[in-house]
Amino acid sequence: MSEMNRVLPLKRISINDKFWSEYTKLVKEVVIPYQWEALNDRVPDAEPSHAVANFKIAAGMEEGKFYGAVFQDSDVYKWLEAVGYSLQVHPDAELEKTADEMIDIIEKAQGSDGYLNTYFTLEAPDKRWTNLKDCHELYCAGHFIEAAVAYYNATGKRKILDIACKFADYIDSVFGPEEHKLKGYPGHEEIELALVKLYETTGEKRYLNLAKYFIDERGKNPYYFTIEWEKRNYVDFWSPNKPLSPETNRNYYQTHKPVREQEAAVGHSVRAAYLYTGMADIAARTNDKELMDACKRLWNNIVSTQMYITGGIGSTRHGEAFTFDYELPNDTVYSETCAAIGLIFFAQRMLRIENKSCYADVIERALYNTVLASMAKDGKHFFYVNPLEVWPEASMKNPTKQHIKPVRQKWFGCACCPPNVARLLSSIGHYMYTMDDNSIYAHLYMGSSAEFDINGANIVLEQATNYPWDGEIIFKVSVKNDTPFRLGLRIPGWCNKAGLKVNGEPINLCEIVKDGYAIIDRTWKNNDTVLLTLDMPVEIIQANPRVRANAGKVAIQRGPLVYCIEEADNGPILSSIALTADTKLTARYDDSFLGGAVIITGNAERVNDQGWNGQLYRPYKADSYPVNITAIPYYLWGNREPGEMLVWIRNR
Amino acid sequence: MSEMNRVLPLKRISINDKFWSEYTKLVKEVVIPYQWEALNDRVPDAEPSHAVANFKIAAGMEEGKFYGAVFQDSDVYKWLEAVGYSLQVHPDAELEKTADEMIDIIEKAQGSDGYLNTYFTLEAPDKRWTNLKDCHELYCAGHFIEAAVAYYNATGKRKILDIACKFADYIDSVFGPEEHKLKGYPGHEEIELALVKLYETTGEKRYLNLAKYFIDERGKNPYYFTIEWEKRNYVDFWSPNKPLSPETNRNYYQTHKPVREQEAAVGHSVRAAYLYTGMADIAARTNDKELMDACKRLWNNIVSTQMYITGGIGSTRHGEAFTFDYELPNDTVYSETCAAIGLIFFAQRMLRIENKSCYADVIERALYNTVLASMAKDGKHFFYVNPLEVWPEASMKNPTKQHIKPVRQKWFGCACCPPNVARLLSSIGHYMYTMDDNSIYAHLYMGSSAEFDINGANIVLEQATNYPWDGEIIFKVSVKNDTPFRLGLRIPGWCNKAGLKVNGEPINLCEIVKDGYAIIDRTWKNNDTVLLTLDMPVEIIQANPRVRANAGKVAIQRGPLVYCIEEADNGPILSSIALTADTKLTARYDDSFLGGAVIITGNAERVNDQGWNGQLYRPYKADSYPVNITAIPYYLWGNREPGEMLVWIRNR
Repeated sequence: MSEMNRVLPLKRISINDKFWSEYTKLVKEVVIPYQWEALNDRVPDAEPSHAVANFKIAAGMEEGKFYGAVFQDSDVYKWLEAVGYSLQVHPDAELEKTADEMIDIIEKAQGSDGYLNTYFTLEAPDKRWTNLKDCHELYCAGHFIEAAVAYYNATGKRKILDIACKFADYIDSVFGPEEHKLKGYPGHEEIELALVKLYETTGEKRYLNLAKYFIDERGKNPYYFTIEWEKRNYVDFWSPNKPLSPETNRNYYQTHKPVREQEAAVGHSVRAAYLYTGMADIAARTNDKELMDACKRLWNNIVSTQMYITGGIGSTRHGEAFTFDYELPNDTVYSETCAAIGLIFFAQRMLRIENKSCYADVIERALYNTVLASMAKDGKHFFYVNPLEVWPEASMKNPTKQHIKPVRQKWFGCACCPPNVARLLSSIGHYMYTMDDNSIYAHLYMGSSAEFDINGANIVLEQATNYPWDGEIIFKVSVKNDTPFRLGLRIPGWCNKAGLKVNGEPINLCEIVKDGYAIIDRTWKNNDTVLLTLDMPVEIIQANPRVRANAGKVAIQRGPLVYCIEEADNGPILSSIALTADTKLTARYDDSFLGGAVIITGNAERVNDQGWNGQLYRPYKADSYPVNITAIPYYLWGNREPGEMLVWIRNR
Repeated sequence: MSEMNRVLPLKRISINDKFWSEYTKLVKEVVIPYQWEALNDRVPDAEPSHAVANFKIAAGMEEGKFYGAVFQDSDVYKWLEAVGYSLQVHPDAELEKTADEMIDIIEKAQGSDGYLNTYFTLEAPDKRWTNLKDCHELYCAGHFIEAAVAYYNATGKRKILDIACKFADYIDSVFGPEEHKLKGYPGHEEIELALVKLYETTGEKRYLNLAKYFIDERGKNPYYFTIEWEKRNYVDFWSPNKPLSPETNRNYYQTHKPVREQEAAVGHSVRAAYLYTGMADIAARTNDKELMDACKRLWNNIVSTQMYITGGIGSTRHGEAFTFDYELPNDTVYSETCAAIGLIFFAQRMLRIENKSCYADVIERALYNTVLASMAKDGKHFFYVNPLEVWPEASMKNPTKQHIKPVRQKWFGCACCPPNVARLLSSIGHYMYTMDDNSIYAHLYMGSSAEFDINGANIVLEQATNYPWDGEIIFKVSVKNDTPFRLGLRIPGWCNKAGLKVNGEPINLCEIVKDGYAIIDRTWKNNDTVLLTLDMPVEIIQANPRVRANAGKVAIQRGPLVYCIEEADNGPILSSIALTADTKLTARYDDSFLGGAVIITGNAERVNDQGWNGQLYRPYKADSYPVNITAIPYYLWGNREPGEMLVWIRNR
């Protein structure tokens, strides 16, 4: 295995893009301040958080009782991580002061031994580490470590990093192969990938080893979650009165087998994605081919059989989980926002191992569709579940569909998703490029300026583009001296026709595309330009016939964007609309539509729903009429009056 | 309102029919004996019942503890009711002896005050009538009363009727408008219709009044279930640790409004159907137009918007409930067997009020499809849920679909359905005819001989037919003297072309059809014959476009039978099959197919599921090939190797 690909520090990249600047601005100006208000319970009519209050109480600064989920701390940590990213891009003294104050509180809430968890400190100090399966201690620790690394990278202030190291050192003293240590691992994976970040930041190899220990131990027999359950006298956290052997539900925790032997993605989809991310981190850093093969197998299983066209994963609300190959129901879908973000993490780690566009394609798919859809245009309302088919009355009246919300909510009792979106969008620069000593690979396209050091030379790469509305991207290279390096430009999987010019000279792409990237090896001069043109026609997409839910249906896609039809444009009973062999779809940019977007219109046919005289069933007669339909980008759905929404449209 | 239509006693009708004799024989020879074994826990590997044991313990005949659901008694009662019907048709001294012994046990289990319920007697004697919402006491009482009436009608033995009257008298002393009585009503309706039967059998008007009281009181404010909940210090039976106000879930119990004001069928579908049956019973006997209008409104709501093509009702497993108009998902359906039976009860009561074929059409639809499908050809395996779309792997791996069983089970922890099927099939003669002083209406067609007394004359009406495999029915009238009466013959809603001959003379149906019945008014002579010919082509049926789940799909129906396609005939991925404009479907009788059935074959097209190279999504290309498909009657599904099954097939 060659040296790992590197990721550009956020400080070295500045985004200035018509499409994305709106989001980075929203995250900085609205999402981060709004979420701080939510974490402090200052948003009227939103579900309570109490997360900051828990810390103040644990720090001895306030009186009160712990409130919230056992993983409530992680909401603060994810917010702090987002702040860390935001400050790297947009210094903001006031925000930094707020964060510093929060870090001071956290420091006071930490035990002298390094332990940090407000639930256990306040509610069950004698029960630390007794229920790794249910209680999210290591999960919260992981989120704190991620926050610490991000904030330290932003500010250079060591306090939060020191708290994290002290905590990690303590955890390392509790878990590991040595006889006196616990042989456990988290019920909700997260700390593995976090410890790798802490190792990268501090150089302390113990953190890498501990992460690897958690990965390696997972799924072994005898089963740790049964051992700790027996020690607890068979009492569970979530259902204390119903003893249920942990053996019955190992898939949920990805503990059904040692991770190296796992064939298919199973169980809770966020946990799974975080685990696979950590596995890829370890595999890359330890040259562990067996672990890498497991990552590739699990990756292929997800993207070839268990991923929605929107990049969402998780086919059932029960356990927020994967189900099995090709089962992708649209109306009882889960597709949790956090799971799509986890899939992006996993993809990015795979890109650090090998520059293959299949990984970046999925980053783009999940980011431009599920992640962006999860947040309202106002930055203050969020989806936890991202459905592909919505009938609002069914969400209200059929409990099987009650998790499908037709309207984004202000906050959640389990508020994992909104701060996860904040931390992803505020670190979006991390997903644009990877590089090694001789090459730069561009994975995402957005107006930006990025600064690289390749073989000792300083290189600035500027992108100018109107992506995703059109597929023309202009790269400008700035170098002090002529500099040889490889530039790899992703040719997205959705693109069937691309063009490339260097300094105006056409280049035959067929000859230079490898693993989905146009590879330009040359000695670059200052002000060299590259023009990449990705044809972006409206595409009609079908799903593999094994996906029963999408039989006879198609989705509309243009470039990276999946489209949907909404009741607001097309009236109710969207299922009565069908595309036909004569359907022609046209894309046009409408700058009045929700801040500007390409919308797609065309002709279709519609089943006549009149003249039924109260009948529920009758002998078939063809009775359709032509209609014009309007499709909008999926990520913009639900930003107008609530109504039906549909991604997979019938096709005749 | 005119005099109510009457139902023929089972003793006056004998069925001798190629199709039905198999079922009546099965019920007598297999189902009733098998269920007795199950109730006595003598079926290996079946879920335990303990229902008979509970009675023996309550009777002081055995030591032990109550086991099972709070409504476990009702399984014995429904079995006893089936025995009562069976004995009316097929006298059987040994079975009668078994039943008499059971009745002796029940007599011993009854309290001196008349109270009868093994759960409360054994487990919570001080909690009688404290939780009508959850605890099924009145429900079990209703089933006992129904059993008593059936068994008394079969044998003329008063013992069971006396037990029932003693119990009913006691209940009447507890509930009612008088100040000292409880103002309650059952959480699970059933006793209302049972008390009407007891009134019909005994002539005791108090029973009718009590039934009417339960009906009238239901849904009033202040809410009785809240009143009793407050008296219980807010403790529920099913979730004692989670105080949840009964106000939050009134739909489930059909207590959201007084019954006269109810507009749409809501909540638990079996409860709803039993309630509506009782309402129709009361409306008919009290000339209560307002109540009758409510029955018609609820009937129309069900059959016009909430009934599966199989006659099943209940769109969600959550609460085993109706959801709302036009929401009829096929793969997360509930369609409980008992609910279809309840719908048949409701329809029969409506037929007693007015001879309109819409009611009998639904009896036929639910009977020939859902009810028959619920039982395996061996009479020993049953479905509780009757899906219209099955993917066995999804039932195993997606908890959202785990209630959809691809294979019939031997018995159930909640075993309401199998004995309900037994009591319906053993009393099938009750659904064939209604009559009044001047007319006989035939609703169902099966080979049979029935004896009527019309205006003092004795009439024997014989049917000979190969129904449902073909639509020719020959009626032969036997009378001692020439006798004038009206004969009404249902022209089923599925039939678009029918013919009628009386003594070989064609009669123009257009002139004599009223409310879906061919009305033959004449003075009948001995050996007069009527030949009714119902054309029975293969029909392609579509659902109202408001049913989103069936958009672009059709079902195959022939006569009263809905068809389905199964993996056993058509391979997996049934969703890839589509009917086309060129599809020709042919029916043929195959006497080797599961004991003989008309199967339907024809041409269709199938999406090519090869050549995808691991892709999950790709640009659409038309890639289908012609195939021959085989459809079998829905009621026979799941009698071969487990596999996919589909009722609603794509239509291009």
